[in-house]
Amino acid sequence: MMTKQDLLDCHKRIAPFVHKTAILTSRLVDKEVGAQVFFKCENFQRAGAYKMRGATNAILQLSEEQKKSGVVTHSSGNFAQALSLAAQSVGVTAHIVMPSTAPEVKKVGVREYGGKIYECEPTVQARQAFADEIGLKTGATFVHPSNDINVILGQGTAALELLKKQPDLDFIFCPVGGGGLIAGSALAASYFGNNCKVYGAEPFEADDAYRSLQSGKIESNETTNTIADGLKTMLGDKNFPIIKELVSGIVRITEDEIVAAMKLVWERMKIIIEPSSAVTVAAVLKQSKEQPEVFQNKKIGIIISGGNVDLSNLPF
Amino acid sequence: MMTKQDLLDCHKRIAPFVHKTAILTSRLVDKEVGAQVFFKCENFQRAGAYKMRGATNAILQLSEEQKKSGVVTHSSGNFAQALSLAAQSVGVTAHIVMPSTAPEVKKVGVREYGGKIYECEPTVQARQAFADEIGLKTGATFVHPSNDINVILGQGTAALELLKKQPDLDFIFCPVGGGGLIAGSALAASYFGNNCKVYGAEPFEADDAYRSLQSGKIESNETTNTIADGLKTMLGDKNFPIIKELVSGIVRITEDEIVAAMKLVWERMKIIIEPSSAVTVAAVLKQSKEQPEVFQNKKIGIIISGGNVDLSNLPF
Repeated sequence: MMTKQDLLDCHKRIAPFVHKTAILTSRLVDKEVGAQVFFKCENFQRAGAYKMRGATNAILQLSEEQKKSGVVTHSSGNFAQALSLAAQSVGVTAHIVMPSTAPEVKKVGVREYGGKIYECEPTVQARQAFADEIGLKTGATFVHPSNDINVILGQGTAALELLKKQPDLDFIFCPVGGGGLIAGSALAASYFGNNCKVYGAEPFEADDAYRSLQSGKIESNETTNTIADGLKTMLGDKNFPIIKELVSGIVRITEDEIVAAMKLVWERMKIIIEPSSAVTVAAVLKQSKEQPEVFQNKKIGIIISGGNVDLSNLPF
Repeated sequence: MMTKQDLLDCHKRIAPFVHKTAILTSRLVDKEVGAQVFFKCENFQRAGAYKMRGATNAILQLSEEQKKSGVVTHSSGNFAQALSLAAQSVGVTAHIVMPSTAPEVKKVGVREYGGKIYECEPTVQARQAFADEIGLKTGATFVHPSNDINVILGQGTAALELLKKQPDLDFIFCPVGGGGLIAGSALAASYFGNNCKVYGAEPFEADDAYRSLQSGKIESNETTNTIADGLKTMLGDKNFPIIKELVSGIVRITEDEIVAAMKLVWERMKIIIEPSSAVTVAAVLKQSKEQPEVFQNKKIGIIISGGNVDLSNLPF
């Protein structure tokens, strides 16, 4: 089990390589939600997403010998960029397996940060098989984007920073893709929160985590027909037990709700968030409509996971 | 002449009604420019632009008698929204004359904040004539968007806040439309800066301020064929003397440079800035390419003037 001290050590370890991102508020959102909402802006993070935290921690934990052979991962985009940049910072080679359907802007980012891209079919099986093959050929250490203890700890530092600034948050909402962010956030809330409940948000079109919590075992997505391209992956055996123990629930969101929330944040808060982050904002808005009493006089943290959007392909 | 104390009093007066906006930095921009750059994010201001500062100050300076008859202005958009919101906050009616060509998103904003819209031909003459007519009919006090002492003081508080946080800025760059922001910023820099030079930025397609500084008298725009819709207006007799005395120069920017700078900030800083603000970023980027030595080891402040963009009509 990851301890409070593990999380603090991780935060200190990665500090020189990641931004302590801004926390923004909005009068309009507070009014809409009927509560005080704090946006932890990981869209301002290096490489445009919280993934930089976990990637950095994973690489800094490699031995010198391992660093020589590089790292390999598969990712729909944000972890790919993050691992490339984190690797580049310490002179390590990053091999990145990306689905052929990944947004062009994310591929450009990986190339800019010196990552070597290998395109594969957009299935979970194809990604893993290709990454394993590269690992065998090059000796690169595989770093999973979400099902890795060091990655989970790293991702948890966003919630840790948020709770240090706002120690009396009643809720933290974050998106659920592979489960690394929510597992890390739930750990941070359990160690640094004051009875702070953690909720996940995911699209109806990729609701594996919701169904996994219902059934008690890891379920996979039948379809992943969602604009939230970062949330198509499934949970893993390292993060699911944490999620099962510490997460209070998962709110499911329609595609229309995702786009509406994204537009609201762009237009009114003037920050660029990607669809995966809009899912989380939509979850808070939805809960505030369905059960307004739950949020009354409460403080809610939202982890804005990233801002990597292809500007030439917007949903509005 | 407006004094240091006037500026401090104004800042205190408007504080309850405006946001103390965030100041953001970007490693990528610092690298591009070869200097430390501080973005004063007035796109996060209430009503989405710095104009809220001046509008609020102007309304708070009205007598109770004047407040009863309302205010009237003409504006291409941001001042319209700002005056509407500032007026609404204190229960005053705002009559807003807008050019028929103003972006739809700005008209929607005015309506939301309770402003009464009157559409007119998109010429400086038509705007003023219509606003005068409304003033005569209703008794409303005319508040000019930029050529008004109280407005200039209000706009100067953004630079004042920036200099309080970063007292050793070497430069402040801001856009020049009607001249209220740059006049206020120049006053703030003269009173609170440490030898801080203020530069303006404007499109080649609306370079009246550049030509006015050259000729020593207020010049008007021959064309205003620019995407920077906030910068089409001309200088006035109240702000021009301040600009002439305190502004070090004005950098002119092409339309392509505006769009490129806007895209850079959206993609890399993940904040939404409008074209008028992109002009200023473009000016800093341009200067850093043309005379890199000038910015070496310097600190530069950029007033990001606003973020009101029609998302259904983007230039990329």
